[in-house]
Amino acid sequence: MPVVQVHLKAGRTVEQKRQLVERITDSLVEIAGANRERVHVIIDEVPGDNWGRAGRLLSDD
Amino acid sequence: MPVVQVHLKAGRTVEQKRQLVERITDSLVEIAGANRERVHVIIDEVPGDNWGRAGRLLSDD
Amino acid sequence: MPVVQVHLKAGRTVEQKRQLVERITDSLVEIAGANRERVHVIIDEVPGDNWGRAGRLLSDD
Amino acid sequence: MPVVQVHLKAGRTVEQKRQLVERITDSLVEIAGANRERVHVIIDEVPGDNWGRAGRLLSDD
Amino acid sequence: MPVVQVHLKAGRTVEQKRQLVERITDSLVEIAGANRERVHVIIDEVPGDNWGRAGRLLSDD
Amino acid sequence: MPVVQVHLKAGRTVEQKRQLVERITDSLVEIAGANRERVHVIIDEVPGDNWGRAGRLLSDD
Repeated sequence: MPVVQVHLKAGRTVEQKRQLVERITDSLVEIAGANRERVHVIIDEVPGDNWGRAGRLLSDD
Repeated sequence: MPVVQVHLKAGRTVEQKRQLVERITDSLVEIAGANRERVHVIIDEVPGDNWGRAGRLLSDD
Repeated sequence: MPVVQVHLKAGRTVEQKRQLVERITDSLVEIAGANRERVHVIIDEVPGDNWGRAGRLLSDD
Repeated sequence: MPVVQVHLKAGRTVEQKRQLVERITDSLVEIAGANRERVHVIIDEVPGDNWGRAGRLLSDD
Repeated sequence: MPVVQVHLKAGRTVEQKRQLVERITDSLVEIAGANRERVHVIIDEVPGDNWGRAGRLLSDD
Repeated sequence: MPVVQVHLKAGRTVEQKRQLVERITDSLVEIAGANRERVHVIIDEVPGDNWGRAGRLLSDD
């Protein structure tokens, strides 16, 4: 525990994902007292034509 | 708010996804009083061999 | 299929949820050709102190 | 009902996914009394550089 | 890894949930070769008026 | 965008959740270049008898 799912628009670099995992894990360990070994962060990269905001596909904006 | 995740079998057209996003957003605005600008709809397209119903993969049916 | 998860701030009435389920199901049947009997809509009502936007809990706004 | 989402590292064979769907569906029918026809199992295959454990990407281990 | 989310209608006993966790974990270990210590099963119990199937709330059926 | 779901064992204080939302939002803005106003963090607090690890309910450990 805990398990974090990060849904974001596709296109980040591996290095950005590496840093996100590290920083999010740190915050759960430091703030919520989580056991570092058991923190899972799952990144879901979503294409622009699969994400709608305000009724429009991101790929249409 | 709100955030809607739509899991469906892969294979819809961009136009279908465009209409789904619009109609689902409309229903959240009209029925739940959501702020249109803050409604997110995330479409998760699932291949037939990653979706099981009644104990069988869709790709086996 | 499909399965829709609707995450929204807690506090809607049963009637609002009834209409949301109906309207979202209709859009999946009419736009995506889904089989009405197999459309699932799961509503996740989230308390204000469990939802953050722009770095702040909704309950703090 | 019920709906099961299985997030696991990408790379399993179709046969493994076939067996997972069958076994998970069986357990929900036998233990939770679910209606077999309405059990959905959605497998989310996650690449190693989208999954972090203990603050590190799996692809870095 | 892996992480399994089980969404089902509220009302199962702790013993049923205990058995579900055990059986689902066994299937991931035996079929997908998962490391038992790292298998997480998260059960989401959904009230009848938060689950819609075929356009109707379960609580209305 | 982005949307983050944090599943963790129930029992954190509002202040811990406030800090988690802030720190996770900061990391998405600073690392992934997200628009702060559009970052959503949804915290899912899970009771011990709804979370299984290594085949056992947390509430049994």
